[in-house]
Amino acid sequence: MNPLNLRVVLVEPTQPGNIGATARAMDNMGLEDLRLVNPCDHLSDESVKFATNAAFILKKATIYKSLAEALADQKLVIATSARVREKFHSFLHLHQLKDELAAFPRETPTALVFGRENSGLTNQEICLCNYWITIPTFGKSSSLNLAQAVLLVLYEFRKFDFKESLAPFETAPVANSHQIEYLKDHLFKILNDIQFIRPGKYESLWSSFSSLIGRAKPDERDVRMMRGIFNKIELSLGLKKKRRK
Amino acid sequence: MNPLNLRVVLVEPTQPGNIGATARAMDNMGLEDLRLVNPCDHLSDESVKFATNAAFILKKATIYKSLAEALADQKLVIATSARVREKFHSFLHLHQLKDELAAFPRETPTALVFGRENSGLTNQEICLCNYWITIPTFGKSSSLNLAQAVLLVLYEFRKFDFKESLAPFETAPVANSHQIEYLKDHLFKILNDIQFIRPGKYESLWSSFSSLIGRAKPDERDVRMMRGIFNKIELSLGLKKKRRK
Repeated sequence: MNPLNLRVVLVEPTQPGNIGATARAMDNMGLEDLRLVNPCDHLSDESVKFATNAAFILKKATIYKSLAEALADQKLVIATSARVREKFHSFLHLHQLKDELAAFPRETPTALVFGRENSGLTNQEICLCNYWITIPTFGKSSSLNLAQAVLLVLYEFRKFDFKESLAPFETAPVANSHQIEYLKDHLFKILNDIQFIRPGKYESLWSSFSSLIGRAKPDERDVRMMRGIFNKIELSLGLKKKRRK
Repeated sequence: MNPLNLRVVLVEPTQPGNIGATARAMDNMGLEDLRLVNPCDHLSDESVKFATNAAFILKKATIYKSLAEALADQKLVIATSARVREKFHSFLHLHQLKDELAAFPRETPTALVFGRENSGLTNQEICLCNYWITIPTFGKSSSLNLAQAVLLVLYEFRKFDFKESLAPFETAPVANSHQIEYLKDHLFKILNDIQFIRPGKYESLWSSFSSLIGRAKPDERDVRMMRGIFNKIELSLGLKKKRRK
């Protein structure tokens, strides 16, 4: 499943820049409902600066006194933690979550909860959640910045929705087998005329070109372009007469 | 395929903070080879600050005069663009790339190329690449910050490698059918003793509990915990005698 009804809950964020950058990441990924539990000043200059065009998300963010209060109307609650906690043995990797959520309808009110920059979520707060995910890291920079973690989680949730929102661009249909064979015939007629093909090598050359063209998957425009080139070569070589006007 | 031999190439980045944040994202995702084409000062205080623990990546970054030079030893070159360009009709979404790369060995030297903050890559630079991907966005914040785009792309490449690096944690085996049935028998014995079960309701109650327990997928520890609770309830209710010492 790929929840549509998503919101972000930040628990006691201490850096205004992180709240602003979270708002920007939410806007990037098409979310607007930001919930803040005992935040620092989320409308400070720094926060608004980091939000760039998403200051409107900061302005309508709602403030809560506890995580329980912020989650009261949510049905699915997913906590993200940088550290895997031994007592909670059901931590999933972010990309494994999708399969786990298969049984939930897409409209399920879903909250994505992120803890404090330094200390994360308390165990009591983690127990308010249904799923626990982690984004492990490899290097010396052992944890992600808060807003970066938000961005990665939202990206993983929303990426399959991008299809609809991609601006349509003109794509030519992939050339069909007839067009491809005609193209190869044309090429080999020229190769033959210029005596490129050595005796006994015709078949292996044909096979190499077939494979190359197969991998390139030319579309109809590509085929037209190549046939245009072949025509011009033939004309330039005097192999073909110019069409009469 | 999931390339292992990855590097990041930034073309003419103008914000030192973005270079630093890129180094941090690379370290997060286990990369070290950063290549810079005509960069701003990549060792400035601001750059180093944004790199946090990944300043070592900035220090060993290599500088080039052109993208072609930076790519000379690479076999697979992937360009990321915020804008889909009509002339290059083979743009893929980031998450679609994986299938396209199936034919390449994992060790293929692979460069991930990111353009200028404001103007991206020139058409000439884009033609140096084999694949073009885009990370579209939804909202008013129409494009991602450079380092955020790097992080998302690296995450998509590396996420399946996280499995190995997750610290192993003790997991109890899921309880088997025998243990589950014993647990339900125990519960229903108590429910019967306290006369919770109304006449004719035994079966539907049994069915509801079976479904609930089935969904909860308790492990052996969970079952021991619940049986402990049931024992204590029985003792407290005087339904069961304390074991002799």
